[in-house]
Amino acid sequence: MKALVYNGPHDVSVSDVPDARIERPNDVLVRITATNICGSDLHMYEGRTDFEQGRVFGHENVGKVVEVGDGVDKVAVGDMVSAPFNVSCGHCQNCEHGLTNYCLAANVAGMAGGAYGFADMGGWVGGQAELLRIPWGDFQCLRLPEDAAEKQNDYVMLSDIFPTGWHAVEMSGLKPGETIVIYGGGPVGLMAALSASVKGAAKVMIVDRHPDRLRLAEQIGAIAIDDSKVDPVEQVTEHTKGVGADRGAECVGYQAHDPQGNEDNADTLNKLVASVRFTGGIGTVGVFIPQDPGGPDELSQQGKARFDFGNFWFKGQQMGCGQAPVKRYNRHLRDLIAADKATPSWIVSHNLPLEKAPDAYKHFDAREDGWTKVVLNPAQAA
Amino acid sequence: MKALVYNGPHDVSVSDVPDARIERPNDVLVRITATNICGSDLHMYEGRTDFEQGRVFGHENVGKVVEVGDGVDKVAVGDMVSAPFNVSCGHCQNCEHGLTNYCLAANVAGMAGGAYGFADMGGWVGGQAELLRIPWGDFQCLRLPEDAAEKQNDYVMLSDIFPTGWHAVEMSGLKPGETIVIYGGGPVGLMAALSASVKGAAKVMIVDRHPDRLRLAEQIGAIAIDDSKVDPVEQVTEHTKGVGADRGAECVGYQAHDPQGNEDNADTLNKLVASVRFTGGIGTVGVFIPQDPGGPDELSQQGKARFDFGNFWFKGQQMGCGQAPVKRYNRHLRDLIAADKATPSWIVSHNLPLEKAPDAYKHFDAREDGWTKVVLNPAQAA
Amino acid sequence: MKALVYNGPHDVSVSDVPDARIERPNDVLVRITATNICGSDLHMYEGRTDFEQGRVFGHENVGKVVEVGDGVDKVAVGDMVSAPFNVSCGHCQNCEHGLTNYCLAANVAGMAGGAYGFADMGGWVGGQAELLRIPWGDFQCLRLPEDAAEKQNDYVMLSDIFPTGWHAVEMSGLKPGETIVIYGGGPVGLMAALSASVKGAAKVMIVDRHPDRLRLAEQIGAIAIDDSKVDPVEQVTEHTKGVGADRGAECVGYQAHDPQGNEDNADTLNKLVASVRFTGGIGTVGVFIPQDPGGPDELSQQGKARFDFGNFWFKGQQMGCGQAPVKRYNRHLRDLIAADKATPSWIVSHNLPLEKAPDAYKHFDAREDGWTKVVLNPAQAA
Amino acid sequence: MKALVYNGPHDVSVSDVPDARIERPNDVLVRITATNICGSDLHMYEGRTDFEQGRVFGHENVGKVVEVGDGVDKVAVGDMVSAPFNVSCGHCQNCEHGLTNYCLAANVAGMAGGAYGFADMGGWVGGQAELLRIPWGDFQCLRLPEDAAEKQNDYVMLSDIFPTGWHAVEMSGLKPGETIVIYGGGPVGLMAALSASVKGAAKVMIVDRHPDRLRLAEQIGAIAIDDSKVDPVEQVTEHTKGVGADRGAECVGYQAHDPQGNEDNADTLNKLVASVRFTGGIGTVGVFIPQDPGGPDELSQQGKARFDFGNFWFKGQQMGCGQAPVKRYNRHLRDLIAADKATPSWIVSHNLPLEKAPDAYKHFDAREDGWTKVVLNPAQAA
Repeated sequence: MKALVYNGPHDVSVSDVPDARIERPNDVLVRITATNICGSDLHMYEGRTDFEQGRVFGHENVGKVVEVGDGVDKVAVGDMVSAPFNVSCGHCQNCEHGLTNYCLAANVAGMAGGAYGFADMGGWVGGQAELLRIPWGDFQCLRLPEDAAEKQNDYVMLSDIFPTGWHAVEMSGLKPGETIVIYGGGPVGLMAALSASVKGAAKVMIVDRHPDRLRLAEQIGAIAIDDSKVDPVEQVTEHTKGVGADRGAECVGYQAHDPQGNEDNADTLNKLVASVRFTGGIGTVGVFIPQDPGGPDELSQQGKARFDFGNFWFKGQQMGCGQAPVKRYNRHLRDLIAADKATPSWIVSHNLPLEKAPDAYKHFDAREDGWTKVVLNPAQAA
Repeated sequence: MKALVYNGPHDVSVSDVPDARIERPNDVLVRITATNICGSDLHMYEGRTDFEQGRVFGHENVGKVVEVGDGVDKVAVGDMVSAPFNVSCGHCQNCEHGLTNYCLAANVAGMAGGAYGFADMGGWVGGQAELLRIPWGDFQCLRLPEDAAEKQNDYVMLSDIFPTGWHAVEMSGLKPGETIVIYGGGPVGLMAALSASVKGAAKVMIVDRHPDRLRLAEQIGAIAIDDSKVDPVEQVTEHTKGVGADRGAECVGYQAHDPQGNEDNADTLNKLVASVRFTGGIGTVGVFIPQDPGGPDELSQQGKARFDFGNFWFKGQQMGCGQAPVKRYNRHLRDLIAADKATPSWIVSHNLPLEKAPDAYKHFDAREDGWTKVVLNPAQAA
Repeated sequence: MKALVYNGPHDVSVSDVPDARIERPNDVLVRITATNICGSDLHMYEGRTDFEQGRVFGHENVGKVVEVGDGVDKVAVGDMVSAPFNVSCGHCQNCEHGLTNYCLAANVAGMAGGAYGFADMGGWVGGQAELLRIPWGDFQCLRLPEDAAEKQNDYVMLSDIFPTGWHAVEMSGLKPGETIVIYGGGPVGLMAALSASVKGAAKVMIVDRHPDRLRLAEQIGAIAIDDSKVDPVEQVTEHTKGVGADRGAECVGYQAHDPQGNEDNADTLNKLVASVRFTGGIGTVGVFIPQDPGGPDELSQQGKARFDFGNFWFKGQQMGCGQAPVKRYNRHLRDLIAADKATPSWIVSHNLPLEKAPDAYKHFDAREDGWTKVVLNPAQAA
Repeated sequence: MKALVYNGPHDVSVSDVPDARIERPNDVLVRITATNICGSDLHMYEGRTDFEQGRVFGHENVGKVVEVGDGVDKVAVGDMVSAPFNVSCGHCQNCEHGLTNYCLAANVAGMAGGAYGFADMGGWVGGQAELLRIPWGDFQCLRLPEDAAEKQNDYVMLSDIFPTGWHAVEMSGLKPGETIVIYGGGPVGLMAALSASVKGAAKVMIVDRHPDRLRLAEQIGAIAIDDSKVDPVEQVTEHTKGVGADRGAECVGYQAHDPQGNEDNADTLNKLVASVRFTGGIGTVGVFIPQDPGGPDELSQQGKARFDFGNFWFKGQQMGCGQAPVKRYNRHLRDLIAADKATPSWIVSHNLPLEKAPDAYKHFDAREDGWTKVVLNPAQAA
């Protein structure tokens, strides 16, 4: 089958790889109809992880079921399904308590959490390809309703970024009527803004410096703060009568840098602590990693950050971290899309065939204006 | 009245100060019968805060009501009451949502949270004295049952350390049947161990290096880990089948140091992240401060810590921080004491008259063996 | 002062009564600018409670502070404030845990919960009058922002019906993306529909038989079900693919009756159990009472209902009951109004001077078409 | 294989039935080593349900794995496992949200929830037999530690009654330091008492009339209330300073009757509402059913109860109902047993071979003194 293969830093190609197939009785095989390029693909694309050459990217996948294993009860050939980016078994201690983001069976021993086409997440083949094998298929697949094709650009957000943005807001502890500030206006940050709005936030503020992202934020009623022009902490303070935002979300990750490009993995974290009020909460879904050999200094290479812990403690804040447990949210988010209460596709800038993926990676990695979110459509490809 | 006055680093005396009195209609005036020396008093005693000379220490107070203001409805002269260390009004936004630890009316504008005899907590006179003025008395005072005198050494723990230890465990997210590791076996850490036990922990581990503290921990069934002899992270891992503890509690604070005395404000935090399992939670009640002029290096002087954020995020952990909202817990903890289900007095090593306080500070600050917790009894003093 | 006085069943008048005044140091005195007639006033108006003759109705009050007691810190003369219908002290066991709906100090001994102008709720004078005494004023008063006059018809809903509708939804356990059915499309039911919408419900269904109410429901996107024409349980089942609604809200109360007028206090309860899915939740804010001497049969006179408990248990449902703790919600709901995210005034049909109140009671009690919600404005009255 | 077969009301026998075997790829086959007689078996034994003749009882099962299907990843031959009484698939909407008590795949369409050897719960063969087929085995089986044989009488309680008692307490909302009253001192009620104690209740009261049960309750520190001698509501009120218990648990079910034997399905419910304080919570795990053809009057035959709803609402209580989601709790309860923090076997009165089961049913159904809990051990049988 054709698939998007990683050949090394900034080098990907559409190549032939062995067909995905049913390997275990609980497997489901799907033909991919939509698969996104994700901001977290870029960490790997840039060579800032230990993602292996020759492997296939792609963890935001929608497809049509073409075959199921003997143990599969629920999912049937012909179903349109969304696959959570978390590969998870459904029966380990973490999965049974809803922590599918840290499945104990989907990674190597001692590590928790699996994902398709991801560094250090269990080696699963990604879905930027024609076919995808989904293990533990009955547990993994979320079936889509009859409007699956029509709203495919919405439903494809259910694999990762809509639940991930939602999870950031959830971990922040947002209650209806509260205010929230989101650092990072990329796809995940924008989904966090959408999520906060659906959940009844009184005021949503979003900090970024790319005009196309800030425009998208404003389209859904958020207050856009351009940190290349103003001090975001001051702005948030002003928008909240001097008190600070009730809640905050980190949607940038360890490659955070100031508008001048100076990288500091504590930059958004410390600004969040300063922007959020006493007793407020913060959800951090931007990726941070235990070892970052490409980091700008020794401390960051060890995965450490110069975190403003004194201020964090003094203000009595709380923080939740990590990848999103997609299955905790994806069913309800699907129903919100079906009921026209949420339309996450508003951020999609490009629908492209698989062949155009290498080119799309270049544009998206460069944060070129207008390349806000790319959806690849292998099944429709020429 | 007589009171324990701070004259400067390592210098306190029992001196005459103006009598506490009713100043506002909602005030309650108590004669102090028991008041503890707290580990957090030592940060101030050592001159590591900006506590003002001439002020009075004491935030763990029990006493008998001797006068009430015109606006007081509930509390009556003669009642034995416990005063939470948090001074709080009961009607600001934070208090009304149960966040009495961050009352907006009990400190200067822009700061949240008040306390008796504490640096930067609103300037309230402390209770290591003969009398104490309790503002917003109906909201503040917890009335004690008929065994108040008999169990005074238990009830006096309700002002701070029992709720504070409980809060650490609560913020960690502990559920019955789970395991927890507590860094710090001082009075608060021991209360966290007691709390975890009452809340149904399957296994409680406590890390310290003072034999008297470790013995007290073992007396309530905790596993004592002496980090001057073994690697605590390895020990916790071994006690949890290689998985890590479900939950962790930080009960040391910014003056954390290794057994050799090297101070590093990230020491216990990073060990907690390493000791706690993927998806686990951490409650941090040890004190951290935004500015620490006496810190060992520039970063710590700015209140920052070399926090292992990459690992914290990668493991999908969450952390809650800050002082305890005593009123959220003190009524139920009082009832546990009354029902003989909790006996926090087991840590008390000394009951002393107020006059002996300066001497007691010396011994307690030196962590002398056998000085685990000092209760001062001004009303019984000669 | 002028006030709306209850003279007996279906007999009220605007009469002179002694001026409300400051009686205790924590009292606040307000001049009423807006006060609603509530559906629960009608139970009393109809003589179906033991409300005493000569007393004053009115528990949905907004006004301007004209005097404060010596113990009042926060509220100041000139503030525009909303008074929760729950009279509550702020310092009893229930208030301190947020259960201001069941304050132990605001009623007679052994009973919990106080309210202005209400049967069996502590005897407090109501606010359908020129002046209102608010006890424990700092705790009770919610200050309104600068647009208080302009949005008075919205803010006046904060005393009762908006928080009460919200509480029904909250107790039902609704999560964003779920469905809910509301029995009763009066003011509280409509507020429940608004609340569910703000909280991210995927589908809101509302059951009633009055065309004006059903129209209002549809104006905010709810599905209106006319139970005088269709079977509501069947309709809900159909709208939820045969599964039943995730959540339900009871907003009718013990005088529930079928479209033909046959009263049965279990009618809406049993239909809710049938309409809600296995494991679903129900919030019941319609009023039920322990003794109902005017009930249609012996069982209902004893306050008992022929409740379909077998089905309730078999379906594994849960139910929360009772009056709303207004203070738990009113601050956030105020902020939603201020941010234009909620506009509860859409149900107001009449703004009238106090003198017109007796006439308004007649129309409202008769559920006359078009009399959906009456706001009285004593301060603007001629 | 040998199995305990239901032949009709009060008539069971040990008979030969077809061997349980692997039928689907996710099945696990176990040889039963311990299986309890449950109080809910008695509803069926007495003919008060539509349990079909010829079927096999038994839903509290422990056994050793003797074979696994091709799709099974985790469970291995030789493992000692506890099987939750809830048969559940792990991948339907309810299972994925932790509601395994209402699995949508384990029963007939339109009904939720499956169980082994139970009326109307999907027709699964029970485990009072030599072998048991466990569907969705990786999701269903809880593996037991090395002391599985030694503590088998404890671990066998994990299938149902320990989690069920725990669930009653959980649904009641009990917090450490609170009081609880439990109606029903049978095995489930005693487990509720044990659970409340482990969860830190300050006071546990249990109402029953059988001396052997009351003695067992007192052995774990509960207050035993004999309702054949005293008024239980009065007693609870007295034990709680006139306020009522904070929480209540119903562990009797629809065949509730007074000490004289008069059956009334609302008896314990109404006493609970009266015994529990304003704002308190109630967990109901005693079985109630939608249709009870053998009920004493028409209302009860329709599954309805004369419920004191007026009082329930007026007191602002909440109630949760239904069968327990065993998997939500069984892992942590297993760990409490392994750590010697809970010893549920204290209620076991008899360990018997399978052949003695018919005789044991007679004694247990008669509530004979000293027959508090029967464990059958098929694998050890002669």
